[in-house]
Amino acid sequence: MSEEIRNFDAYNPTHIVFGKNRLAELENLIPQDKKVLLLYGGGSVKKFGTLDKVKKALANHQGEVGEFGGIEANPTYETLIQAVDLVKKENYDFLLAVGGGSVIDGTKFVAAAAVFDGDPIHIFGNGIGEKKPITKALPFGTVLTLPATGSEMNSGGVVTFVEKKAKLSFGSAYTFPVFSILEPEITYTLPKRQVANGVADAFVHIMEQYMTYPVGAMIQDRFAEGLLMTLIEIGPKLMAEETPDYNLRANFMWAATNALNGTLSKGVPQDWASHGLGHEITALYGIDHARTLAIVLPSLLEVRKAEKHDKLVQYAERVWGLTGSDDEKIQQAIEKTRAFFESLEIGTSFQAYDLGEEVVEELVAQLEKHGLTSISERGDQTLEISREIYTRAL
Amino acid sequence: MSEEIRNFDAYNPTHIVFGKNRLAELENLIPQDKKVLLLYGGGSVKKFGTLDKVKKALANHQGEVGEFGGIEANPTYETLIQAVDLVKKENYDFLLAVGGGSVIDGTKFVAAAAVFDGDPIHIFGNGIGEKKPITKALPFGTVLTLPATGSEMNSGGVVTFVEKKAKLSFGSAYTFPVFSILEPEITYTLPKRQVANGVADAFVHIMEQYMTYPVGAMIQDRFAEGLLMTLIEIGPKLMAEETPDYNLRANFMWAATNALNGTLSKGVPQDWASHGLGHEITALYGIDHARTLAIVLPSLLEVRKAEKHDKLVQYAERVWGLTGSDDEKIQQAIEKTRAFFESLEIGTSFQAYDLGEEVVEELVAQLEKHGLTSISERGDQTLEISREIYTRAL
Repeated sequence: MSEEIRNFDAYNPTHIVFGKNRLAELENLIPQDKKVLLLYGGGSVKKFGTLDKVKKALANHQGEVGEFGGIEANPTYETLIQAVDLVKKENYDFLLAVGGGSVIDGTKFVAAAAVFDGDPIHIFGNGIGEKKPITKALPFGTVLTLPATGSEMNSGGVVTFVEKKAKLSFGSAYTFPVFSILEPEITYTLPKRQVANGVADAFVHIMEQYMTYPVGAMIQDRFAEGLLMTLIEIGPKLMAEETPDYNLRANFMWAATNALNGTLSKGVPQDWASHGLGHEITALYGIDHARTLAIVLPSLLEVRKAEKHDKLVQYAERVWGLTGSDDEKIQQAIEKTRAFFESLEIGTSFQAYDLGEEVVEELVAQLEKHGLTSISERGDQTLEISREIYTRAL
Repeated sequence: MSEEIRNFDAYNPTHIVFGKNRLAELENLIPQDKKVLLLYGGGSVKKFGTLDKVKKALANHQGEVGEFGGIEANPTYETLIQAVDLVKKENYDFLLAVGGGSVIDGTKFVAAAAVFDGDPIHIFGNGIGEKKPITKALPFGTVLTLPATGSEMNSGGVVTFVEKKAKLSFGSAYTFPVFSILEPEITYTLPKRQVANGVADAFVHIMEQYMTYPVGAMIQDRFAEGLLMTLIEIGPKLMAEETPDYNLRANFMWAATNALNGTLSKGVPQDWASHGLGHEITALYGIDHARTLAIVLPSLLEVRKAEKHDKLVQYAERVWGLTGSDDEKIQQAIEKTRAFFESLEIGTSFQAYDLGEEVVEELVAQLEKHGLTSISERGDQTLEISREIYTRAL
């Protein structure tokens, strides 16, 4: 008797505006009477002209248009709360994120925090304070510059607390973007490193929702496998590109969105232990989010081989086309997964980032502090097991 | 130089409520102050208790709850306009479709027609009258009893005009269901014939969006292939079921929804010629919609082999795992497609429905009358070619 597909709700009202020259439609996507705050990160949206294009597209907007720059990669509560204050003080009533997952996550938080009843610290839990639900948010749109996190078509976000060295997540039915503009050509100016990170991040998002145990959700499995095969096909091609290829970029962008827009998670168990372990690495050592996932995932699959046996075999056969005994297929699939990250020039061990065995206990202590003591799809990944995963990743 | 993925918009605000015992949540899905009209078809929702369950779930609803039964398979304008009159007269402000694609399509039309500016005949075009856009609609939900058309998660519908022997479609951004309740167990009482029809209908919906020519939309292709493989896997199992299997029914239901909820059509060419040719068969001879598609599709693939060459090869390899020369793979894939329909006990020729060569010119005349003279993904399927397809299907 196999498990049954779980009950699920599917709801995603974000309007995706995908393709060439879609920025020009901004004018029609934001109601004319809205006072709009543009939120962005560092210099790249200025350097490569995206911010100028956005402003040009809003040149005839009737409401005021203001700006808040400087949202970091791994956006911090400390920075975002300044944006919240600005929004409240100036009565902005529409936010427009121009950037990647960090800017979009940050904008989601600002949208919720600006109209939150009480101190917005309560949007988070996990030792930061009592958690209270988000019940409303300002409307916001996004112009995506870096395909990776899927934040442009979901309702969740992650915020970093600098002093507490913590990355904490939030979400609600009210924090979906109203629209997201996805222009594949906007990715042409990304450094290869960012493209590689985006591919790796999307890959692990899919694995978190797929690499668990079977419940008979054939469509969710097929969709996950299709996205994994797509990333495996385009990853090396993106790294080898001499001039950007439109279709490669379009598939990259759409894969990253679909990896985390709710499609894959319906009715199935989810893991997210790689993210749990990875977030601590970023918080302590500042390593790019995607790279921390590439450090953790292959070792996690090794350590959790028994628990994930059936799905690993399915993954090996369908995604990698492997044959042989179950054990052989599993071993090869894990090796191929590691090699895939390495083909993106992403190191898959701590050593590759000049970190040694001292990290293990530091990281385990952080997991404990943040309550990540019984994680993964069955809640059976203890600190002991997480320690083993970190150790194997040295 | 391959084609490029086309620009697309993706927007689907329908809230899917999927799984066991979800009907009980109706109470929370419809605002208490709404005056609700239940719309349904013939006797099966009464016979199998679904209508009673719906009423029970709404027992404490504060607004009035009324009923309109008798919506036909292939719902007719003549019947639906009576519902429109009732809605207007009694000021219903929320509709709830309880049924399959016909009831849901009909309810969509009622939702739009009840608040349409002018004569709702203008919702259609194609020789029935001048077409005017839908700009608003009453909110409506659905309780799906027959997985097949995908109408529970899209904004389109098809209405039959009895006197004119025509099936005409409509759609708008305002005619998405607010919610759709999908309980796989509700399908347990369906006759095998209806299950088979649902599988076939979903299969052809996928093919209409997939079997065209490549534009490099890797994800849309993988998703379509995943759904086709799912239907090929579950179709025969559903036919062989002695007692209903929850996961089989859940995958059937979710596959049919995903086959036509917008996921597959983004950025790719679409065909829909099988539907164009099939609708005329239903209108003239009253054959089940899904069965007309099974008559048309295999012959269409034969006749359009050259135009669909590249996608037929991809389909043969990825969906059916075929090897050999391109011509061999294509031929085998078409044969397997036909055999798949036959395995569902669905005839794939006119002969199987006791119809002979007299149908060809009758059907071609209807195509001409309805303006279907340059259809398919390139608009190059002339009446001549349609005649050839009908003839080959004899």
